[in-house]
Amino acid sequence: MTSTYFTPGPAALYPTVTQHIIQALQDNIPSLSHRSNEFRSIYQDTFEGLKELLNLPDGFGIFFLGSATEIWERIIQNCVEEAAFHLVNGAFSRKFHEFSQLLRKKAYKQEVDFGKGFDVHNIDVHYKAELIAFTQNETSSGVSTSLETIYKIKDNNPGRLVVVDAVSAAPYPVFDFSKIDSMFFSVQKAFGLPAGLGVWIANEKCLAKAESIEAKGIGTGTYGRLTQLWKFFEKFETPATPNVLGIYLLGKVVRDMLAYGIDKIRQETDLKAIMLYDYLRESTIFDVFVQNPEHQSNTVIVADTLKPAKPILQALARKGFMVGGGYNKSLEQIRIANFPATSVEQMETLIEALQEIEDSYI
Amino acid sequence: MTSTYFTPGPAALYPTVTQHIIQALQDNIPSLSHRSNEFRSIYQDTFEGLKELLNLPDGFGIFFLGSATEIWERIIQNCVEEAAFHLVNGAFSRKFHEFSQLLRKKAYKQEVDFGKGFDVHNIDVHYKAELIAFTQNETSSGVSTSLETIYKIKDNNPGRLVVVDAVSAAPYPVFDFSKIDSMFFSVQKAFGLPAGLGVWIANEKCLAKAESIEAKGIGTGTYGRLTQLWKFFEKFETPATPNVLGIYLLGKVVRDMLAYGIDKIRQETDLKAIMLYDYLRESTIFDVFVQNPEHQSNTVIVADTLKPAKPILQALARKGFMVGGGYNKSLEQIRIANFPATSVEQMETLIEALQEIEDSYI
Repeated sequence: MTSTYFTPGPAALYPTVTQHIIQALQDNIPSLSHRSNEFRSIYQDTFEGLKELLNLPDGFGIFFLGSATEIWERIIQNCVEEAAFHLVNGAFSRKFHEFSQLLRKKAYKQEVDFGKGFDVHNIDVHYKAELIAFTQNETSSGVSTSLETIYKIKDNNPGRLVVVDAVSAAPYPVFDFSKIDSMFFSVQKAFGLPAGLGVWIANEKCLAKAESIEAKGIGTGTYGRLTQLWKFFEKFETPATPNVLGIYLLGKVVRDMLAYGIDKIRQETDLKAIMLYDYLRESTIFDVFVQNPEHQSNTVIVADTLKPAKPILQALARKGFMVGGGYNKSLEQIRIANFPATSVEQMETLIEALQEIEDSYI
Repeated sequence: MTSTYFTPGPAALYPTVTQHIIQALQDNIPSLSHRSNEFRSIYQDTFEGLKELLNLPDGFGIFFLGSATEIWERIIQNCVEEAAFHLVNGAFSRKFHEFSQLLRKKAYKQEVDFGKGFDVHNIDVHYKAELIAFTQNETSSGVSTSLETIYKIKDNNPGRLVVVDAVSAAPYPVFDFSKIDSMFFSVQKAFGLPAGLGVWIANEKCLAKAESIEAKGIGTGTYGRLTQLWKFFEKFETPATPNVLGIYLLGKVVRDMLAYGIDKIRQETDLKAIMLYDYLRESTIFDVFVQNPEHQSNTVIVADTLKPAKPILQALARKGFMVGGGYNKSLEQIRIANFPATSVEQMETLIEALQEIEDSYI
């Protein structure tokens, strides 16, 4: 039986990925030198596609690393001399904060309970922070932070770098890049690609910060130094051999998303989220975990299960639906990804399956 | 026209890779959670296959990172408290040494000219070094270091960690892991896989070193700390989302190499190297670059071209053969990979093509 993956990452492949992989194999993409014109064309094409998809202005570079986790490390090394400020509301934002500690920075944080979110009124940026780190979509709890909140914090802190972890969200949010200095994601979430590639977008203020840190003789890493990444980006190369196939596939999927229409993808994401939240709210065995509607993620939807989660996950698997287990093991939860790779029809069939399981408990 | 890739990396895919990718797509490998039993089975299978292929004893862990370049950084962070000693004889060993400097270690080195190699008599390990870094196969120059040399240096330095960069060599060399503490490689070279995965093999002495560095409050990184990698390895997981498809494909190709016979692969590698070196030595437009036979790599073979290299590379491409350009731009050279993915017959046809080009110059 073919399964449909509503897992929050690695997730369902975007429907065109298989054909692009087969084409890549025919065209020897995995054997291309990363110092060849062919590779530079692939990098440039992926860059230009992402620039259009995300409405990215000039002055931003796009860099390819191994994972969003690696990008956490590179951002702290390159954009923080002494102090960072992290908004923590789940497992991934907590790890991002922990990375600042491990990298021997002053790592300030503001923390709210699992399942809660941030608004302008409960964010108090530490006065020493050079950088403010948002996890726009907390994959562990299904809590998102509104873009308006991020922008207001930037308006109130024009001298600080605002960086946005958009893992399991991008390309769904319509970011205004005049209000953020860096955004990053990994491709195995909402872009529907095999894992093994992190995409870091950063502006010239981030580069200037890295340069000023290096000028003081403070280490910013090795091949992942932003000064190196930027220098190579200017000729559409990377300092180390990258995931060439991953960059190629990302470029192809970005073009497919543009052809389908990114506005349409966002509208369908909204529709699928409404359908699922509506079902969960009225269900007798599920409930919406994130209570504040303004904090409910539209791309990772977390449900409390009023019956044990494990047999529900098993029943869903038997019906051909793979969804994520709860991240917080002390809670009975399931996590359902709502990414562009799954259609409105597939969401309808998932909800029918959830309803059948609900009926079986009556 | 289908081209045959004799490039030193990214290189020709191992002949079975395409079918394994298609099977992986059918089996939803790219959508598997890296916290699932299915992923743990993939990690375990790849670990056990590599253990058999490389004759790896107990007490070694195998860890998956983004590239061999990343592993340079992780090794220096985790296995060097103050001082490292690097043997430098080309672009890649030079970068490895530079990483030690960038990571603020005392980075000692011994250097020989491009195209020259190391023997026991010209290695004088700095007395402060905690770690000795060999680049067993210098991909830039086609110089290899004999395993006997590495083992003797280890015998003379039992208290120091000996680490071996086996990029563009493994799995060809028959390493005695009682004489080395760590070995690493990237998969897009002699394993014939798409780039985007580095494999780090390290023993418990490396782990103990990392623990002692951390106990002193010195930073060893974040997700790539050896203590973390090892803790997750013990349950066949990774701290960050890895290149799941890459790990799966590596495991499959390792099994294919075992089925074909690793001894047979090594014998064919020797045969192909002899054929190519014999041709180059007698050619009127090529010459063997590495003069000392004991330092000639069998997996990356570098030839001086007595005519300009660029038109020769173009003529080869027109005949369907992709080989590497010289790494040192001040020299007229070509680099030819001799990896398991290319057969004896393919090497014969390459040599015929080289001969035809030679004839055209007469």
